[in-house]
Amino acid sequence: MSLKITDVSVRDIRFPTSRSLDGSDAMNATSDYSATYVTIETDGGAGPTGHGLTFTIGRGNDLCVAAVKELARMFVVGRSLDDITGNFGAYWHELVAGDCQLRWVGPEKGVIHLATAAVINALWDLWAKQQGKPVWKLLVDMTPEELVRCVDFTFITDVLTPSEAVAMLRRVAPGKAAREQEMREVGFPGYTTAAGWLGYSEEKMRRLAREAVEAGWTHLKQKVGADIEQDLRRARILREELGWDRKLMMDANQIWDVDQAVSNMRRLAEFDPLWIEEPTSPDDILGHKAIRDRIGPIGIATGEHAHNRVMFKQFFQAGAMDFCQLDPARLGGLNEVLAVVLMAAKFGVPVCPHGGGVGLCQYSRNVVMFDYIAVSASLENRVLEYVDHLHENFVEPLVVRRGRYMPQVQPGYGVTMKPESLERFSYPDGAEWRS
Amino acid sequence: MSLKITDVSVRDIRFPTSRSLDGSDAMNATSDYSATYVTIETDGGAGPTGHGLTFTIGRGNDLCVAAVKELARMFVVGRSLDDITGNFGAYWHELVAGDCQLRWVGPEKGVIHLATAAVINALWDLWAKQQGKPVWKLLVDMTPEELVRCVDFTFITDVLTPSEAVAMLRRVAPGKAAREQEMREVGFPGYTTAAGWLGYSEEKMRRLAREAVEAGWTHLKQKVGADIEQDLRRARILREELGWDRKLMMDANQIWDVDQAVSNMRRLAEFDPLWIEEPTSPDDILGHKAIRDRIGPIGIATGEHAHNRVMFKQFFQAGAMDFCQLDPARLGGLNEVLAVVLMAAKFGVPVCPHGGGVGLCQYSRNVVMFDYIAVSASLENRVLEYVDHLHENFVEPLVVRRGRYMPQVQPGYGVTMKPESLERFSYPDGAEWRS
Repeated sequence: MSLKITDVSVRDIRFPTSRSLDGSDAMNATSDYSATYVTIETDGGAGPTGHGLTFTIGRGNDLCVAAVKELARMFVVGRSLDDITGNFGAYWHELVAGDCQLRWVGPEKGVIHLATAAVINALWDLWAKQQGKPVWKLLVDMTPEELVRCVDFTFITDVLTPSEAVAMLRRVAPGKAAREQEMREVGFPGYTTAAGWLGYSEEKMRRLAREAVEAGWTHLKQKVGADIEQDLRRARILREELGWDRKLMMDANQIWDVDQAVSNMRRLAEFDPLWIEEPTSPDDILGHKAIRDRIGPIGIATGEHAHNRVMFKQFFQAGAMDFCQLDPARLGGLNEVLAVVLMAAKFGVPVCPHGGGVGLCQYSRNVVMFDYIAVSASLENRVLEYVDHLHENFVEPLVVRRGRYMPQVQPGYGVTMKPESLERFSYPDGAEWRS
Repeated sequence: MSLKITDVSVRDIRFPTSRSLDGSDAMNATSDYSATYVTIETDGGAGPTGHGLTFTIGRGNDLCVAAVKELARMFVVGRSLDDITGNFGAYWHELVAGDCQLRWVGPEKGVIHLATAAVINALWDLWAKQQGKPVWKLLVDMTPEELVRCVDFTFITDVLTPSEAVAMLRRVAPGKAAREQEMREVGFPGYTTAAGWLGYSEEKMRRLAREAVEAGWTHLKQKVGADIEQDLRRARILREELGWDRKLMMDANQIWDVDQAVSNMRRLAEFDPLWIEEPTSPDDILGHKAIRDRIGPIGIATGEHAHNRVMFKQFFQAGAMDFCQLDPARLGGLNEVLAVVLMAAKFGVPVCPHGGGVGLCQYSRNVVMFDYIAVSASLENRVLEYVDHLHENFVEPLVVRRGRYMPQVQPGYGVTMKPESLERFSYPDGAEWRS
């Protein structure tokens, strides 16, 4: 029997991370990691509740909350879950383009698209819980045709058609069971940003890097961009702790212009970075390409602020992106993530999604498991970001063993938060903010 | 004596245009033309009040209103107007990047950037009123150095530096007085969309086209994209009324994928369109370039949904845009418009800004006068959109003579609305919405 959606509620959840400078980088010095947290209720009695969130860093989260209310009222409440998931790509299109008035304040970008992500991901969570599977497994068990029906190909048919996507998925289907078994046994490779935040002292950074090596991490990311001399000094410290076999990545968080990025990375090249992440404006496809051409073999990583599939399409077409860091809560939810994962596979670009924030590691481990098992069938150059904070607020623990992500076990999309966390961190009335 | 800003208020103004299908196109069937209307008060007693707006089409306007309140609280109230305008480029940068939390929900796109436009344009209105000049004249009277100080060059220095911009402005300075005189006498060439809305019957369209020709219009724009057979039929009607010496433009409002745009425009080519506007996703720079390469000599017009200077930079670099249709209320206000106008001049792309909506004709006539007099010094391929509705709500009339825009006369940026209009169309409590 199909579930009917009877109510959608949304909460403004904020963690006061700016007090400890967790998450500090060249662009974002004082972030209060936040979530626009959506709950979907159905007429299913004791049946599942859907939870989804988008990630912001404080102010502005209220705008996303308000946008969710509009989307929920117009497109979610009163609908049948089967009707939605039966043609999920078409439903997704309706959500982003069905109301021209709301579309105008995007389109498919900014506040309205962040809100779309929270709503769409809550629907996936609900669906996966109804099916009794984690989202990655729900996806992996679909036929190619079922998967492709979840994708809206509007504006990307010039590089990928539904039938081409089906053919791609069919080619790797024979190895799916073996790869799923492999993921269950050894997990997906990760990397850590824990040591690299700009707001940390150099002593703290060295200590955290040492601990990361001891914990088995083979990849570590450094935040750069506030001051090149400091960046060089910190890279030296990190290389001292990592040695030269482990990988060092760098992340400038959009702070440079194109020429600045080139000159700074030429100096940092002596530390052999695997990639420079967000060297300039996230909208600057051609700028990323120009930087890439001038600082090779250092790779270009970007995507956590690329707002929709049309931007990724062009990054791929232009050859401007070596590592695809899609964000599962900035793209318009999982349906659009699927579109980007499929295009990435076509162009041979490894998907290394954005982690950290609130719930992004939880989402992204579903994305990478699915990508490896059912789409790319490769682990080459693939690593998923890990940041060790705020996970204690989620119902299901995030399990990482010797630097590798283990698959989500519980049904859903993995971002269901503990009731006591929701109470404590509700903004502005939770205990954490009242004081 | 410097004015200090004592208060910023904002109103949600909506016009029920969906009732008459004014403004209907392939993507936007039911638009309630709306404005996020900002008022800036100072300690100047009987001195000027600043007014600015951003344009939306209904739902979502409330999100922009909420965003304005945050920006105003953080960056506007309590500031000195002289401090702001004395280094306006740096102030603009502070507004879009100074609070990392608000930046995150853009960055520089969507709701937060629309709100930025309303705030910034209200500051320009206040400054121009203080100086006793319309905005175009305030700009025209600046030295090249003063103008360039209003621009934030972040993310565009790879194509344009401040010193290069100063040199460009100096080269055309000698002819400024003559061009200003010319504008005051004969005005700036316009085109009309009045006949071309999709929701109008073919009879109404023919009648309006005939009236437009009689009124002296030489350029007319047709909305296309709902149905190619209808598009062909309507183009034939318009050519019958226009003849072949007047120009016909077409506007698809983002409805097609790349290959669809090409095949449809190849069929519409027989009606000799000057341009196809927004043939596909506004984010798809490389898609526009691909379409352009395949349907020449039809020009590509786009930009009303290009959200910031980084997008325009790439459209120019890629050779993807023949007509630059920047929107003065979607870009982050006049400072960013100046950046785009300067880049357009460097790349030799004519600026034909977005008109219509609410207040866009009012803003844009300032932009084109300034561009012609002080930057491009050319009228070739330049036309400003004219849509004949809602102008009666503004204090200063919009004067168009025989298809040409006359310069704004009153001080400010031209979007100060009549108090009775503000009352009547306030949403949801104004008389128009209560009933």
